[in-house]
Amino acid sequence: MNINAPVPVGVLGASGYVGQELLRLLARHPGASIAFATAESAAGEIVEGQRLVKSDDAPLERAELVFSCLPHGVSRGYVHHVRAAGRRAVDLSADFRLSLEAVYGLTEVARPRLVGAELVANPGCYPTAALLALIPLAQRGLIDPSREVVIDAASGVTGAGRSFKRELLFGEVAEDYRAYSAGNTHRHLPELRATLARESGFTGDLVFTPHLLPVKRGILETIHVPLTRVLDQATAEGLYQAAYDGEPCVQITRGSLPSLKDVVYRNRVAIGVAPVTNVQRPRLTVIAAIDNLVKGAAGQAVQNMNVMLGIPETLGLAC
Amino acid sequence: MNINAPVPVGVLGASGYVGQELLRLLARHPGASIAFATAESAAGEIVEGQRLVKSDDAPLERAELVFSCLPHGVSRGYVHHVRAAGRRAVDLSADFRLSLEAVYGLTEVARPRLVGAELVANPGCYPTAALLALIPLAQRGLIDPSREVVIDAASGVTGAGRSFKRELLFGEVAEDYRAYSAGNTHRHLPELRATLARESGFTGDLVFTPHLLPVKRGILETIHVPLTRVLDQATAEGLYQAAYDGEPCVQITRGSLPSLKDVVYRNRVAIGVAPVTNVQRPRLTVIAAIDNLVKGAAGQAVQNMNVMLGIPETLGLAC
Amino acid sequence: MNINAPVPVGVLGASGYVGQELLRLLARHPGASIAFATAESAAGEIVEGQRLVKSDDAPLERAELVFSCLPHGVSRGYVHHVRAAGRRAVDLSADFRLSLEAVYGLTEVARPRLVGAELVANPGCYPTAALLALIPLAQRGLIDPSREVVIDAASGVTGAGRSFKRELLFGEVAEDYRAYSAGNTHRHLPELRATLARESGFTGDLVFTPHLLPVKRGILETIHVPLTRVLDQATAEGLYQAAYDGEPCVQITRGSLPSLKDVVYRNRVAIGVAPVTNVQRPRLTVIAAIDNLVKGAAGQAVQNMNVMLGIPETLGLAC
Amino acid sequence: MNINAPVPVGVLGASGYVGQELLRLLARHPGASIAFATAESAAGEIVEGQRLVKSDDAPLERAELVFSCLPHGVSRGYVHHVRAAGRRAVDLSADFRLSLEAVYGLTEVARPRLVGAELVANPGCYPTAALLALIPLAQRGLIDPSREVVIDAASGVTGAGRSFKRELLFGEVAEDYRAYSAGNTHRHLPELRATLARESGFTGDLVFTPHLLPVKRGILETIHVPLTRVLDQATAEGLYQAAYDGEPCVQITRGSLPSLKDVVYRNRVAIGVAPVTNVQRPRLTVIAAIDNLVKGAAGQAVQNMNVMLGIPETLGLAC
Repeated sequence: MNINAPVPVGVLGASGYVGQELLRLLARHPGASIAFATAESAAGEIVEGQRLVKSDDAPLERAELVFSCLPHGVSRGYVHHVRAAGRRAVDLSADFRLSLEAVYGLTEVARPRLVGAELVANPGCYPTAALLALIPLAQRGLIDPSREVVIDAASGVTGAGRSFKRELLFGEVAEDYRAYSAGNTHRHLPELRATLARESGFTGDLVFTPHLLPVKRGILETIHVPLTRVLDQATAEGLYQAAYDGEPCVQITRGSLPSLKDVVYRNRVAIGVAPVTNVQRPRLTVIAAIDNLVKGAAGQAVQNMNVMLGIPETLGLAC
Repeated sequence: MNINAPVPVGVLGASGYVGQELLRLLARHPGASIAFATAESAAGEIVEGQRLVKSDDAPLERAELVFSCLPHGVSRGYVHHVRAAGRRAVDLSADFRLSLEAVYGLTEVARPRLVGAELVANPGCYPTAALLALIPLAQRGLIDPSREVVIDAASGVTGAGRSFKRELLFGEVAEDYRAYSAGNTHRHLPELRATLARESGFTGDLVFTPHLLPVKRGILETIHVPLTRVLDQATAEGLYQAAYDGEPCVQITRGSLPSLKDVVYRNRVAIGVAPVTNVQRPRLTVIAAIDNLVKGAAGQAVQNMNVMLGIPETLGLAC
Repeated sequence: MNINAPVPVGVLGASGYVGQELLRLLARHPGASIAFATAESAAGEIVEGQRLVKSDDAPLERAELVFSCLPHGVSRGYVHHVRAAGRRAVDLSADFRLSLEAVYGLTEVARPRLVGAELVANPGCYPTAALLALIPLAQRGLIDPSREVVIDAASGVTGAGRSFKRELLFGEVAEDYRAYSAGNTHRHLPELRATLARESGFTGDLVFTPHLLPVKRGILETIHVPLTRVLDQATAEGLYQAAYDGEPCVQITRGSLPSLKDVVYRNRVAIGVAPVTNVQRPRLTVIAAIDNLVKGAAGQAVQNMNVMLGIPETLGLAC
Repeated sequence: MNINAPVPVGVLGASGYVGQELLRLLARHPGASIAFATAESAAGEIVEGQRLVKSDDAPLERAELVFSCLPHGVSRGYVHHVRAAGRRAVDLSADFRLSLEAVYGLTEVARPRLVGAELVANPGCYPTAALLALIPLAQRGLIDPSREVVIDAASGVTGAGRSFKRELLFGEVAEDYRAYSAGNTHRHLPELRATLARESGFTGDLVFTPHLLPVKRGILETIHVPLTRVLDQATAEGLYQAAYDGEPCVQITRGSLPSLKDVVYRNRVAIGVAPVTNVQRPRLTVIAAIDNLVKGAAGQAVQNMNVMLGIPETLGLAC
């Protein structure tokens, strides 16, 4: 493969919000060309200049690498076809995230394993933000395992996909806000726990509660961390700054807290901290924000593709 | 006073969001008539049929009871004038909430002390929801004082008032979400702690983090409670149902969790619960929702007025 | 019928946005009691304290008057059942709006015909605002029939109903705005033309273009009227003021233009005017705003019920 | 100047919404480097990696070309300084739009005059969309000058700037919609009329009414055109397609109408048409949509810079 010629890539499942975002990024990526894009009920439509074909008709052999944005459960079979055709794959569903078959593609953590990888499981949106916020503390033994880590996460509606659910109608979501999957019942929790344990050895209790925000895109997580020792603001910020030194897609918001507007339409996680006063034992509040469609999905998938193929890591991405 | 004739009441500070809501409620209240309403820069304007006068020109003697929606710090002096004129007062600012001069007007808890009270401090919006959610658990000794209670609260922008701040412009707030006053630095925390201790004896640690939601009205609080013993869903719901049996303005959402749309434009707190799975020690997630302008401010002020004056408690209110 | 006892009423189709709003209004109406409320897929659910039954199981005989919020086409048959059972009906669908069987219930215009009426066709939301804005001008011969009246109308999404359409998802509507049914193809146009001709004799050309707004409720219409003679601001306002003198649900916003916030959650039309400068022939821009769910649907239905039954016209309504 | 080296450019007034968008575009533009960026009260802040300096301290000589996003009235003097320093200027204020000193930079129309121009007046956001929609019809004599062209335009709030006005608070704008500057009193009308006359000779009457939308960005204009002869859908679309053949930043939405989501975050105008039925004389409804911050301001300014300097026209822009 000539490193200067655009790499032909395919997209399975290009009609949902993540698939559309991925096509949008790839259409402007100087190092990639879109070989095909698929959809089922939307087959025949044109998105970003691509006429969508049925997934069963995808010319897999024309792509060097195939992204799958197909639904959980459906994706696994198609990705196996891609692999059987000798093509690399980045799977954006949950199907391989807990599997040993794939490299778990949290780019900043997995970079060495991504180079040349054949199959990458792109992380879930919620775990991406939580893991990038928690791993530096956990790796340094700073999280008190005897007290629970409480994570309240709020996501824009594109995180719930583009399916026909009454609860996602504008008339239901606008001016509303609510928790869902409370009580540690969300599908992303096992992914979060397993990855945190693997990367840091931390196995303490987590309490994870997602919420639905009346915005189109963006995730903000408020992470309540019990500490093993006191960390003041400057020390905590310095710790994150050192942990992510040189990382192009991580921003530590020193002296302020991140908000959605810092991250939307960017392939970035923004992290800020606030030590907790008026409590008896040391605690740190960590705020992490991402765009669920970019660093939480399509952008991180492109970042992973770049690393897999030896393309400059942020090519085609606004961080 | 003839119990059938509308009681003349006055409103100090009627041009902000809370003052406007209060005028709106009073204008339709069959048991009250508006004797005057005041504003400073908006004096002369007509709101709900009332021509606003300067606060210094308010004819206090024409009212039986005066509400103050003046800013914190400013309200205290005017309320003292009201009291000196022999009129009852309901203060919606923070000025009397930690004072022994006033009855703290969390209606469901303070009802006996409100009857005939001369000065009532209307609770803050965040404490109203948190206290109604926590007091039943705390009074029964169910909250483990050795672990922190974590409260993540999200409020619509009318909670921040109608002042000229760039951060409250539509262009800044729309499609955004952020935490503020993180690290236990919010003004409402002492009010919350003191009241919880007084009503239940609970003095364990609280971690309170407010967030700004891109909606006009509504507060939703996600309250993470460490328990002294396991409570399953039905038991926890039954406990709240019993605690608030017969309360017209408290709704226990059995089998589901409350959202803002359940409470906006109503003088209601909605409370729902979810026991936390996959953790080693017992925990309960409690969700409490109110309309910050109604049960969190103007509506509760009217509810308190009704109790103070012997008017049916929910007259003029939609619960 | 004892005028002091609440009138039992039924609601067919109570699970959509209009049906819910109607139940909400009726639940608080001192002169009405809800005898039954129906739904199809939502049968069994409880809304405003009413357990919804299937429309085919509605106990029609228990109500004095039945509202139908059933879909266009479906409503007609059920309303005929209601009439066959000897009950009065207010139909909120389009099924009787062009029919001689029913009184067209634009309350301010039809009041004398509503008293004692057996079947009332509640007007469409767009025609309600347009007709109340145009009829006073047309009746006075002020609209130049040789030039087109151009009406650009913008509606919140509850006007499109609560059905499962992808185009109504929050992710599609938020931050978006678009025209639809352009080119005079909207279903409401014949209703508007026929009523305007009947009430004023005006038969000139209309151009009607609806738009979808990213808000939950409210309609604002910008109506461009070619005039037969010059009207200055004061004269035009005075004309409307006189035309609607004493009307409790019509507000003329003198010296300013109405916006949605003036009308939402109220049974009111707000009308304002601006003479057009810098053109050769006389023109007036008229802005009319209503809440599509209240004055545009459920509120006007209640207003009509009140007139039909001799109840004070605004009882149970906030105008 | 070496065509391959990035051109150093400066930005006067970089803290408003337009200035921020311009910095964002320039920071990613492969053919430009930011020499300086200025602000007044925000001087000292860092935006897109640039530390803002006071406008009076701007090192004009370091830039080849200077953009001014300063307020109307203020901009003129600074632009004269830029010109006196021998630097080219693109002025985004209204100060030179009606002046013979500057080339009016509606790129698609002015391209030949832009090459090598020293001073370009960037068009207003509303006129950009209206002119691109009207000029093709007017140049072909298709607009009936005896009847008024009615333009209803709706803009997101960033079009109103980032100033401290109560009417721009989230609590005022969210869930609201309203007209402003009705009656042909908006500042953009003379610019629109003069340019349309100059480019096409059309001098018939226009009626222009802007509205404030509860969205962050985007303008959609519904343009009601009286025609001199009947145009069916295909003919009208073909006419626009031919008029803009090969234009990279103009999209004709054949068979559908554009919405904001087609254009936001892109340097594009989208135009769609609907012939009007049920009227006696021929009419066409034309819908034109742009992102007010991109094609309506900062993006078109970059497009103009590219043409002025011989850079590929869409470099650094997503059309």
